[in-house]
Amino acid sequence: MTEATKLMTNLTAATLVGDAPYGLIQDAAIALEGGRIRWVGPRGDLPSELAGAKAVDMGGRLVTPGLIDCHTHLVHGGNRAAEFEMRLNGASYEEVARAGGGIVSTVKATREASEDALLQDALRRVDTLIAEGVTTLEIKSGYGLEVETELRMLRVARAVMANRPVRVKTSFLGAHAVPAEYMDRADAYIDEVCIPALRDAHAEGLVDAVDGFCEGIAFSPAQIARVFDVAQTLNIPVKLHAEQLSNLGGAAMAAGYGALSADHIEYLDEAGVAAMAEAGTVAVLLPGAFYTLHETQMPPVQALRDLDVPIALATDANPGSSPLTSLLLTLNMGCTLFRLTPEEALRGATVNAARALGLSDVGTITAGQRAELAVWDIAHPAELSYRIGFNPLHSRIFGDLA
Amino acid sequence: MTEATKLMTNLTAATLVGDAPYGLIQDAAIALEGGRIRWVGPRGDLPSELAGAKAVDMGGRLVTPGLIDCHTHLVHGGNRAAEFEMRLNGASYEEVARAGGGIVSTVKATREASEDALLQDALRRVDTLIAEGVTTLEIKSGYGLEVETELRMLRVARAVMANRPVRVKTSFLGAHAVPAEYMDRADAYIDEVCIPALRDAHAEGLVDAVDGFCEGIAFSPAQIARVFDVAQTLNIPVKLHAEQLSNLGGAAMAAGYGALSADHIEYLDEAGVAAMAEAGTVAVLLPGAFYTLHETQMPPVQALRDLDVPIALATDANPGSSPLTSLLLTLNMGCTLFRLTPEEALRGATVNAARALGLSDVGTITAGQRAELAVWDIAHPAELSYRIGFNPLHSRIFGDLA
Ligand SMILES: [Zn+2]
Ligand SMILES: [Zn+2]
Repeated sequence: MTEATKLMTNLTAATLVGDAPYGLIQDAAIALEGGRIRWVGPRGDLPSELAGAKAVDMGGRLVTPGLIDCHTHLVHGGNRAAEFEMRLNGASYEEVARAGGGIVSTVKATREASEDALLQDALRRVDTLIAEGVTTLEIKSGYGLEVETELRMLRVARAVMANRPVRVKTSFLGAHAVPAEYMDRADAYIDEVCIPALRDAHAEGLVDAVDGFCEGIAFSPAQIARVFDVAQTLNIPVKLHAEQLSNLGGAAMAAGYGALSADHIEYLDEAGVAAMAEAGTVAVLLPGAFYTLHETQMPPVQALRDLDVPIALATDANPGSSPLTSLLLTLNMGCTLFRLTPEEALRGATVNAARALGLSDVGTITAGQRAELAVWDIAHPAELSYRIGFNPLHSRIFGDLA
Repeated sequence: MTEATKLMTNLTAATLVGDAPYGLIQDAAIALEGGRIRWVGPRGDLPSELAGAKAVDMGGRLVTPGLIDCHTHLVHGGNRAAEFEMRLNGASYEEVARAGGGIVSTVKATREASEDALLQDALRRVDTLIAEGVTTLEIKSGYGLEVETELRMLRVARAVMANRPVRVKTSFLGAHAVPAEYMDRADAYIDEVCIPALRDAHAEGLVDAVDGFCEGIAFSPAQIARVFDVAQTLNIPVKLHAEQLSNLGGAAMAAGYGALSADHIEYLDEAGVAAMAEAGTVAVLLPGAFYTLHETQMPPVQALRDLDVPIALATDANPGSSPLTSLLLTLNMGCTLFRLTPEEALRGATVNAARALGLSDVGTITAGQRAELAVWDIAHPAELSYRIGFNPLHSRIFGDLA
């Protein structure tokens, strides 16, 4: 024990490890030291060498791991409110497209935005997540679709971490859409822009994972595989937007690369579930997009459970299909729309989200993990999913207790 | 002009009056004096006698009327997270009921809670609404179902107004459910509890409107009518939960009493729409309950538009079917789930919500109205409905500018 050791007492801990529901420990204590969890357990079991640590009374509150949002596109220029309004006034997709709407408008706004403008705009969304107890989040590129802007987006994602007490993992998503200048030439886009951008971004240390959008309106599994081959030679883990609107076998293809996660997966079939189970690939469910797009095809939740595929939940924060920046609301949507249990929802935004990002030092309350915790003014963890548009966060711990 | 006159400048005003979409005025000015709006218009049209008023630069922000949540049950004891979790773990309604769940559990917790406990709990929800720019809200009784507790709930609703800078309108909802002690004796409950409680609450000045829940699982139109008859003799306006799960003709019955509003109304038929149009009854749509209960029957939005029935949107904040305390999210749900336009959504939480509460001095930005405004860090009012789980409120004005 050092002088800096602090002991959180008078709390309920949802550790998310062990056999109890939520890994719940009543009347728990948590010792923090050097930015790490040194010890956690029932207060009565506190080792004698920690008895003298400076105690901080948590007032009987619930403590969980800091929340983790493992799938966001929150760095981008502009917004799509005008398009949202046009659609609700009856405009067809064609009319919206003619008015410059769709992902094209976000690509344009992102290309035109300076690094600082992108950062300031992103920080508003990041602050919203932090206010809900988020301590780690993922941010993707994918609205540049040209080398320079893809790199700028990733630099902004890194800058988020320098400007806020939060951990950021980046994903290179050059294979997000085919830009107008490569219309009907997706393969040439992959060769001439996507792969060179990936190599440059990697050389600059900007890439923690490589992602793609595998869908009829984007890229085929074979095209994505060519990007993943490069990721593999660079030793970068992969993940994939797959089976959102149709079943192209993208998740199974990604699992073949040992993908960290396959995301969306409403149309995933049993073979895809089995491939993910085999590879240890996490299923990242994104109910915000399901809600916004009025989808009706449910992800295969029971099949995922049956084969022990870890389920994560994320905001998919993006200006088009999921302008959602509340991870707590995402938990509620996971329960309400996808029939997850509140415990599955919380695991989906902590331990399983960590795994989807390849992180093993956050996501549970365990000795040795980083001291990244959320303290809540509630009695039971089910309340985190139950309420809608209510934030019971009391405080957030990121590395050390104030 | 007095020394206290203040002039808000450099703003866009969504006045919600006039022919322009949202009643939008670019480069507007708003003069406030004595807690009222003295003048609003394009800055260039500012009357000369106001030119010397103390100007406050709003930084180009958007100003709307303060938001109005015209249907809430936010005073109540306990929460229903355990029931939410049981259901998602596969428990049947019967099992939930046997475990003490359902409205019965809220009635029990509310009866057992002290006035101060109810107030402190309610204030957390009220603070969430206020943080989103809400300046007026409605609160119902209806979890007492006995004279004393119904009155206590209404006293708490009044106390909210004494404890926070917000306007509260109360609704007596004794006819919310039949309590266990009156099982199968709904008429006796109306006579022996509901009507006496209404008279007592009115005598104490606690009742701004009388509400009821007209549904197979609650009260028939004839039973509600007996309560409304008393309301009429006491000169209290009425409103009704109607046509949520089936069509009993409740909205038309309420319209016959000149009801301020009929709320939910997913199953409302054309005759009901016509009756509401005739009476000037507002249609209060509650997408939070629709979302939580997985309803699929849409309210007759186009029929309401065709007959110019004003549409309002509210949270229905309650611990069972809508544990929702975000009015901004309600706007998004109104658009996403009910296909309202963003302008209809905003009118639904301002001018039409005011009308649903019988208020004519709030809800628009017009000379003579109360100075209750919301200032937003956004460029266009459609952004209020477009985002999900994001709060762009810059500041709220309640009576005077700080
Ligand atoms: Zn995505
Ligand atoms: Zn209600």
